[in-house]
Amino acid sequence: MKSKSLLSLLSAALLLPFALSCGQKIECSVPAHIEDGRIVLETPPREKGQQSALLMRCEPLDTVRIGIIGVGMRGRSAITRLSRIDGARIAAICDIKSECIEKAERILERQGCTGVRVYGGDGGWKELCAAEDVNLVYICTDWKKHTLMAVHAMQQGKHVAVEVPAAMSIAECWDLVNTCEKTRRHCMMLENCVYDFYEMSALNMAQQGLFGDIYHVEGAYIHNLDHYWTEYQDNWRLEYNRDHRGDNYPTHGIGPVCQVLDIHRGDRMDYLVSQDSDSFHGSAVAKELMGSEEFADGDHTVTLIRTVKGRQIEIQHNVYAARPYSRMYSITGTKGYASKYPNRSLAVGDDPERFAAPEKVDSLLEAYKFDFVREIEDKAREVGGHGGMDYIMDYRLVRALREGLPLDQDVYDAAEWSCLTELSELSIRYGSLPVAVPDFTRGEWDVIDGFRY
Amino acid sequence: MKSKSLLSLLSAALLLPFALSCGQKIECSVPAHIEDGRIVLETPPREKGQQSALLMRCEPLDTVRIGIIGVGMRGRSAITRLSRIDGARIAAICDIKSECIEKAERILERQGCTGVRVYGGDGGWKELCAAEDVNLVYICTDWKKHTLMAVHAMQQGKHVAVEVPAAMSIAECWDLVNTCEKTRRHCMMLENCVYDFYEMSALNMAQQGLFGDIYHVEGAYIHNLDHYWTEYQDNWRLEYNRDHRGDNYPTHGIGPVCQVLDIHRGDRMDYLVSQDSDSFHGSAVAKELMGSEEFADGDHTVTLIRTVKGRQIEIQHNVYAARPYSRMYSITGTKGYASKYPNRSLAVGDDPERFAAPEKVDSLLEAYKFDFVREIEDKAREVGGHGGMDYIMDYRLVRALREGLPLDQDVYDAAEWSCLTELSELSIRYGSLPVAVPDFTRGEWDVIDGFRY
Repeated sequence: MKSKSLLSLLSAALLLPFALSCGQKIECSVPAHIEDGRIVLETPPREKGQQSALLMRCEPLDTVRIGIIGVGMRGRSAITRLSRIDGARIAAICDIKSECIEKAERILERQGCTGVRVYGGDGGWKELCAAEDVNLVYICTDWKKHTLMAVHAMQQGKHVAVEVPAAMSIAECWDLVNTCEKTRRHCMMLENCVYDFYEMSALNMAQQGLFGDIYHVEGAYIHNLDHYWTEYQDNWRLEYNRDHRGDNYPTHGIGPVCQVLDIHRGDRMDYLVSQDSDSFHGSAVAKELMGSEEFADGDHTVTLIRTVKGRQIEIQHNVYAARPYSRMYSITGTKGYASKYPNRSLAVGDDPERFAAPEKVDSLLEAYKFDFVREIEDKAREVGGHGGMDYIMDYRLVRALREGLPLDQDVYDAAEWSCLTELSELSIRYGSLPVAVPDFTRGEWDVIDGFRY
Repeated sequence: MKSKSLLSLLSAALLLPFALSCGQKIECSVPAHIEDGRIVLETPPREKGQQSALLMRCEPLDTVRIGIIGVGMRGRSAITRLSRIDGARIAAICDIKSECIEKAERILERQGCTGVRVYGGDGGWKELCAAEDVNLVYICTDWKKHTLMAVHAMQQGKHVAVEVPAAMSIAECWDLVNTCEKTRRHCMMLENCVYDFYEMSALNMAQQGLFGDIYHVEGAYIHNLDHYWTEYQDNWRLEYNRDHRGDNYPTHGIGPVCQVLDIHRGDRMDYLVSQDSDSFHGSAVAKELMGSEEFADGDHTVTLIRTVKGRQIEIQHNVYAARPYSRMYSITGTKGYASKYPNRSLAVGDDPERFAAPEKVDSLLEAYKFDFVREIEDKAREVGGHGGMDYIMDYRLVRALREGLPLDQDVYDAAEWSCLTELSELSIRYGSLPVAVPDFTRGEWDVIDGFRY
């Protein structure tokens, strides 16, 4: 019997032209293999002295003294906002380009910020991280430096806010999680779209049960960047997409819907599959701007994610399309439906098969505003930043640090929302093979009872 | 060396808890196995005397004499339409329920149809198929009998029109294709949504290049059937969904976008992955109406399909949702965008990042109407059937049969659009594993240069 069984296993192994042979090592930033029809990534053990950072609270800060690394597009708009928040003070800025520093200094002056130290050169960011009077490092550089800088800053004892995506690989996701768990410093990814007004009211409606049991949600980043490509220093963004196939910019799509589904607060992502189209426009842009002959990123990428509670997330990515901007953002439940694009829509109540009239949508969005939004929305709209959501994001971060509260977005959110970059690339590289989503909480995804502001 | 290589293969086979072991036989209606990370279905060889039915023409019919099997909901509305088409005559009807026959007879009388023979009982449909004066068998029964009846009718020398989906398994898809190729009788699936006004104008725009290179299209059947479930005799539809997980009703979503992508007329579907949510509402309905304790179909199912030319199709299915009706229907290209739901939208021309104003959309849809639509639209809207599209479908079918022309929708369309039922079920059953889509043309998908009316 035994030899027959061995023989049949052997013949199975021999017969199949299975390029993805069972147990084959998978090319990935962490050890990975195929198991039961899925690509499975190994979870590193929690090291000694490292503990969960769920609902982590730190000592309250009287003043949040901020050091901004990178004062290009995003960094300069951060100055405008942070300078308007009570209890926040910009202590330092850093950039490798003198022209960016100069532009930033003009904004600082206009905003009445004084005594702001300036760091430059290749090592400036490390000096900023070491500065004693800085207690929050705010990172607005290109994607590839996000994790490196965030990890270093936490190791220097600083809290961290880092632009999206916080990490570009699973190894980087674990670096963020492990460093946060070791250093007990906060690490918040600056995912601003969760603070957009429609998304926040819809989240409140979801939490109040207006959509019933929610089982399908959608998000996306569909934004033609033709007018922006040259704004990214040395074409870093287009270069990244040239080299990486998959959803390279998932967080605006997945962040808001993960909050709706209470991801790592009662549910978790189980596995995903990704598929893309060929590159039709992206490759043409890269050829024109960089002379690239090859281009990895498909024009349109779709990722389907199933949660362990049997709910579904769909995320799309397209930064090349000749079509209007959309983050999709929709919620499908047993009692109702919300959809933000192309128009802010709701179908709830007695007749969810009909969209509510626009005035009714407006009144529902108003009625389901979170209290904290009501309190700050006037100032948010005045200060601005994508219509106010950027201000609310910064405000919430500064508030949590000053009051010693857990962050709205913790390091596990940063890892979960960022991990789609490499996971989608993996799935696509292996012909849309399913990929198990790592559990960055290491088993504690069901400890917190729902996401709440 | 050799023994080492054998050993490593053996150890690979032994080490992996790969439930989907390499070469494992897959449970499917046709022989299937795993190959190179995909489920691959065997293509049956073309038998002797059987030849391609691409662009097949048959002898022109002076009068299309129609025998309708099944005069329930769809069959009775077919009477209303077919009785208004020049050169078409309803010769016979058939149903197993006398009350359906009686209702149909009242409609026939109202429409002035005389001399219509009536068949009943279990064997009535075979008598109808054998009737000498019938040259088109028009099948409006429950899904499970579609292929059985279509195949039998072709074998009796009749042309066939069959409601959607034409087939519920890959074996049935091949039955349709093989029978059509052997008998040289037409087999058209009655996919009506391809004849909807927006879809036809958008198709014309696509063919005229308004969207540039098209690389991502979407379609869906999202329709809450709570008010309809009891209309399906003996709950056949809900029963089917109770027993089958996957996209059980894909043709309204995929038909229109396959025409846009010239599927089997220059491109073909390469592989798909499907994923669903759990059943949240469907299972509750089935419990209430049928006392079912188990329910297979997930509430929301998404299927991603990649074509060999690197383009992408996304299809959704949800017949349980508390949300407004949608077939999604969108076209994304390098120059423009079309999206029908929730509003008929277009973004084309100089500024495709903005939606055209509603009046502009209307004028574009009017300007890009196919000539044949312009000729019959008044009558189509008057006769009706989902706003006219059902009439146009019947009109086009009767016209092709009378003039000896190829059908708009051939048997390969029927197979391709229907095959998603079992392929999505397969993918989902094996954890969203990719499934290669069979080439029902057996290699001739690139012979015809684009779909044209």
